[in-house]
Amino acid sequence: MKATAKAHTNIALIKYWGKRNDSLILPTNNSLSLTLDGFYTETTVDFQDSLTEDSFFLNKEKINGIAYERVTLFLDLIRKIADKPNLFATVHSTNHVPTAAGFASSASGFAALAAAGSKAIGLQLADHELSRLTRQGSGSACRSIYGGFAEWQQGTLEDGSDSYAVPIAEQNFWDVRVAAIVLSAKEKKVSSREGMKRTVDTSPFFKGWVDSIPADLREIKQGIEARDFEKVGAVAEANCLKMHATTLGAAPPFTYWNDITVSVMQTVQKLREEGIPAYFTIDAGPNVKVLYLPENEDKIVNTFRHLPGVTDVIVSKPGRGVTYTTEDE
Amino acid sequence: MKATAKAHTNIALIKYWGKRNDSLILPTNNSLSLTLDGFYTETTVDFQDSLTEDSFFLNKEKINGIAYERVTLFLDLIRKIADKPNLFATVHSTNHVPTAAGFASSASGFAALAAAGSKAIGLQLADHELSRLTRQGSGSACRSIYGGFAEWQQGTLEDGSDSYAVPIAEQNFWDVRVAAIVLSAKEKKVSSREGMKRTVDTSPFFKGWVDSIPADLREIKQGIEARDFEKVGAVAEANCLKMHATTLGAAPPFTYWNDITVSVMQTVQKLREEGIPAYFTIDAGPNVKVLYLPENEDKIVNTFRHLPGVTDVIVSKPGRGVTYTTEDE
Repeated sequence: MKATAKAHTNIALIKYWGKRNDSLILPTNNSLSLTLDGFYTETTVDFQDSLTEDSFFLNKEKINGIAYERVTLFLDLIRKIADKPNLFATVHSTNHVPTAAGFASSASGFAALAAAGSKAIGLQLADHELSRLTRQGSGSACRSIYGGFAEWQQGTLEDGSDSYAVPIAEQNFWDVRVAAIVLSAKEKKVSSREGMKRTVDTSPFFKGWVDSIPADLREIKQGIEARDFEKVGAVAEANCLKMHATTLGAAPPFTYWNDITVSVMQTVQKLREEGIPAYFTIDAGPNVKVLYLPENEDKIVNTFRHLPGVTDVIVSKPGRGVTYTTEDE
Repeated sequence: MKATAKAHTNIALIKYWGKRNDSLILPTNNSLSLTLDGFYTETTVDFQDSLTEDSFFLNKEKINGIAYERVTLFLDLIRKIADKPNLFATVHSTNHVPTAAGFASSASGFAALAAAGSKAIGLQLADHELSRLTRQGSGSACRSIYGGFAEWQQGTLEDGSDSYAVPIAEQNFWDVRVAAIVLSAKEKKVSSREGMKRTVDTSPFFKGWVDSIPADLREIKQGIEARDFEKVGAVAEANCLKMHATTLGAAPPFTYWNDITVSVMQTVQKLREEGIPAYFTIDAGPNVKVLYLPENEDKIVNTFRHLPGVTDVIVSKPGRGVTYTTEDE
């Protein structure tokens, strides 16, 4: 009862920022992302009757503590759906998401774990069912089930059964690129989980954030459908700025930005003034991701490689959804 | 019919950000400021029956254009109150507000003009009447009538007659210092007037900003009364961050910050971690003002003088309200 799956990380263009239910991981707004070819996790789950507990290896190293707990709690969900409460697994994961790039490896990690785990135990889940399962491991991971652009529909039901991602446009629809601008100073004082919670609980801007999402989503989906890069980029950049604005109103206030973050943002705006369409987006950390079109890749890479405080620029194309590797079972 | 008055600029600790009436300059929230000794304008207004129009000299240079228009429109208000519609004046102003410091010289400028102009024409205005008049030249100038801490009460009447500043604590009550951190890059792409308007009209965060003001005001006034520097500083810093957050939600979004602005903000936070109480506030531009106590002045000046991107540090004590210079008439 063994299966291997590969899942890519994704970058949110309309951000997931705020939970309405912490334990079920139900969001306060829809979000929309682009799955990225360059960053992925490959995971093998092997259920064996002989095992008496789960074990988890990441990049060949045995993992204990909180990371192990999150994996085994997630396998509990799979066991429950399959009605096999006493079947344990050995999990081997390999992360191809450089930590320095500032992407959450939890997105590709939980998508690959959900895919490999559910297949290994004999479940045949539809994509939206797999996405819904994945969501309960890591919210934004539910979008990584699909290639290209995907939307996480927040849902309205209390049990979260209608909260999962749906495909918007697959990876071959449009070659939009993303450059991860890696900064030298990467300390992150407030985790995304805590930052989100503090913002929901204390920021006077949280309601304005939530209320502004439907218009952003409508506009970015029009932009994707029309392959209108300026429109998609402008909405994504504005949405990211709104997300980060909410943290400045929290009590106590905080920001994920440092001086280099702002320097990269200013450089993106300068590129636009020079006629190069480029837009930024920033998650819950100081790194910046730059959206651009393939014909401007050299210009983008050269511009940011030489910016003081930037240590690396890692580019990516749109990526596929979850794939399975056939192996001997 | 000649009078000379001197008025100091002020730094808002609870920001004025948003108008409910553009022409009367009526705000959407109360604001609170500290008048600063280091930066002032001295203005002489000389009404003469023989004149057929106003003239305005700034730092001995004759001024035309928009700046002249603002002065003569303001003198119209004074002439109207005094019922002397055909009496014109020569105005001489000297600004002791270095442009580079990023303080609005309009605050000290209009306070001095209102004081000298109303006295020269023979009006005897109470402080709140002078503040109300001053407000119509430049909103934040209405707080510069008073020394020390002053609060601009937004008022509720449509004609603005109850919108003026009142004293909170005079300049000798508490020696809180302000260092203006002057940055090398000072370009400001969005004027405060336009930024305010765009924010009011388009930012989903504007309501949250306005709603959060009463609690900030209550807390900062408690802090001033108790001479609790940490409390006053923390509220001022949080209020400034909220004001700047609102601009990130505007359409199109904008910010007054650059990379050095954020670097100064981070340095202030580092000082606090080292046990030096220091807090920042930022107006509609990239420069940062740092609040500190007299015993830490050397540490503050040395820290920021050596920060890359900072060209100067200008310190100030609390300043007096409007004063008049006796001259031959």
